[in-house]
Amino acid sequence: MRTPVRIAITGAAGQIGYSLVFRIASGAMLGTDQPVILQLLDLPAAMKGLEGVAMELDDCAFPLLHSLEISDNAKTAFNACDYALLVGARPRSAGMERADLLSANANIFKEQGMALNSVAKPEIKILVVGNPANTNAMITQHYARDIPAEQIHAMMRLDHNRALNQIAKKLDTSVRAVRNVTIWGNHSANQYPDLFHAKAQNKSVAEQVSRDWIENTFIPTVQKRGAAVIEARGASSAASAANAAIDHMRDWVMGTPADTWVSMGVPSDGSYGIARGVVFGYPCYCHDGKYTIVPNLSIDDFSRARIEKSHQELLEEKDAVKSLLV
Amino acid sequence: MRTPVRIAITGAAGQIGYSLVFRIASGAMLGTDQPVILQLLDLPAAMKGLEGVAMELDDCAFPLLHSLEISDNAKTAFNACDYALLVGARPRSAGMERADLLSANANIFKEQGMALNSVAKPEIKILVVGNPANTNAMITQHYARDIPAEQIHAMMRLDHNRALNQIAKKLDTSVRAVRNVTIWGNHSANQYPDLFHAKAQNKSVAEQVSRDWIENTFIPTVQKRGAAVIEARGASSAASAANAAIDHMRDWVMGTPADTWVSMGVPSDGSYGIARGVVFGYPCYCHDGKYTIVPNLSIDDFSRARIEKSHQELLEEKDAVKSLLV
Repeated sequence: MRTPVRIAITGAAGQIGYSLVFRIASGAMLGTDQPVILQLLDLPAAMKGLEGVAMELDDCAFPLLHSLEISDNAKTAFNACDYALLVGARPRSAGMERADLLSANANIFKEQGMALNSVAKPEIKILVVGNPANTNAMITQHYARDIPAEQIHAMMRLDHNRALNQIAKKLDTSVRAVRNVTIWGNHSANQYPDLFHAKAQNKSVAEQVSRDWIENTFIPTVQKRGAAVIEARGASSAASAANAAIDHMRDWVMGTPADTWVSMGVPSDGSYGIARGVVFGYPCYCHDGKYTIVPNLSIDDFSRARIEKSHQELLEEKDAVKSLLV
Repeated sequence: MRTPVRIAITGAAGQIGYSLVFRIASGAMLGTDQPVILQLLDLPAAMKGLEGVAMELDDCAFPLLHSLEISDNAKTAFNACDYALLVGARPRSAGMERADLLSANANIFKEQGMALNSVAKPEIKILVVGNPANTNAMITQHYARDIPAEQIHAMMRLDHNRALNQIAKKLDTSVRAVRNVTIWGNHSANQYPDLFHAKAQNKSVAEQVSRDWIENTFIPTVQKRGAAVIEARGASSAASAANAAIDHMRDWVMGTPADTWVSMGVPSDGSYGIARGVVFGYPCYCHDGKYTIVPNLSIDDFSRARIEKSHQELLEEKDAVKSLLV
């Protein structure tokens, strides 16, 4: 059995947290030979609920759960951690403007970035799940100055998995047979789900569906899927978001299958004409614990316009939090 | 890849269901080479929420999830199923007497037993999770007349895992090192968590703890753990109950490790002086998809009295639903 690794999870008493921590403790993220130490963070008001979560984790008798700690202090939760899943974020409340939401969250992620910088392992891998995830990740990168920005990602994987599912359903095939969709840009309704390089059973997806379906069904369905789930469940996506976080981390650590990419929100290096530093959804290969942005994909005008729209949105978000980026 | 198996889950839109279905679809119960078809049942009023759960399952793009169906009709949900997890049950509402609760649930499980009998695979494995689980399982056995009673279990595993955890914490060791606790009797506050045959790191647990700790801490803590979780979380155990259901089914199907038993609610064959037909928590070995009640354990007067108390409770429950057992 390997040495246990420390995994910090914020917002651990929330709905996504509740779907996430048990699966991680069971070995779903890092494999069944990797013991884990869970370091769970939430707000002071959530401590009693978080104690209940800790009791239930204990009651699972997970062989891989070495130990667990709960805390309302970021430096305690991030202490010496190898992985951090930043799930907790301020949701939009009634009457809150988008700029207020961005700013409220930017302040949370500023603090967490500084705490991670001071106490986490230098080689830590960080995934931001809490929305607005891309801009929150950018703020975290800014304040975790000694941690390479490439180690701080935003989650695009839920959109990616939703896109795989829509294609599999449309072509009446298994999701296993579908690969290489890309969610470009921002994890928002302005994301661009791109199937023009996707394959199903090794054949081009775009050649098997109509332009009308792509434009008027596939893209809006993936973009608005979160709202559709809320409408049905009366609550936002939790288990599927937790699953996407697990998929993102697992592929980042263990690598992507041959000729298969996944969508990850990573700091732009200028690829595909995106401003450096923005955290952008890109197609990525993973190998040896590192990702590479898939290079040289052909982007036609249709795709370019949609990528650019998401790019502009992220630049506007960046502008809204610019006072924190100095 | 193997042929997909059909797994029916009742109460699938509830809290335990929400913790259960994603883990099963991920392969946690039957292994990562076993595709599954999920057949989810809930009440008509829960159909919209269940649709949301189905959307999220799709959005996970689980490679092992062959397909899924949702229904408010038991015969549809149980059709040709290989496994059934009966999670849905009527909770106690304000002013409801225990006898009313038993009777309301007995009627639910009568209907489900008949439906299982008419449409499920003859070799089906059934686990009753919904409370009062033992008596619900007995009713199900009665009405699923063509399915051997040995294929219809009640869940004791949450109590079992809680007991392992309490011992591991007390002895400052890993749960991996602790084995062979037994939860005798009823999944209720009158269960008897028995550590007198348990081992931690191959040494007798009973010789490492005081009689006072066993009697005044260990036993009541395990018996009342459900209430303690409710007190902390403000909601009853969900993820840990789902995990216990997964553990029960996995061990039943895949077998228990060498020299290790688990606690299962199975129809009494008269072992340890328990009336035949009562569904009783026993220590069980599993091998080749079948269980064996561990024979010939020495039971002292202390244990005997507690086993008998739980036995009496189950006989009283049986008496309360006797009109349905003719």
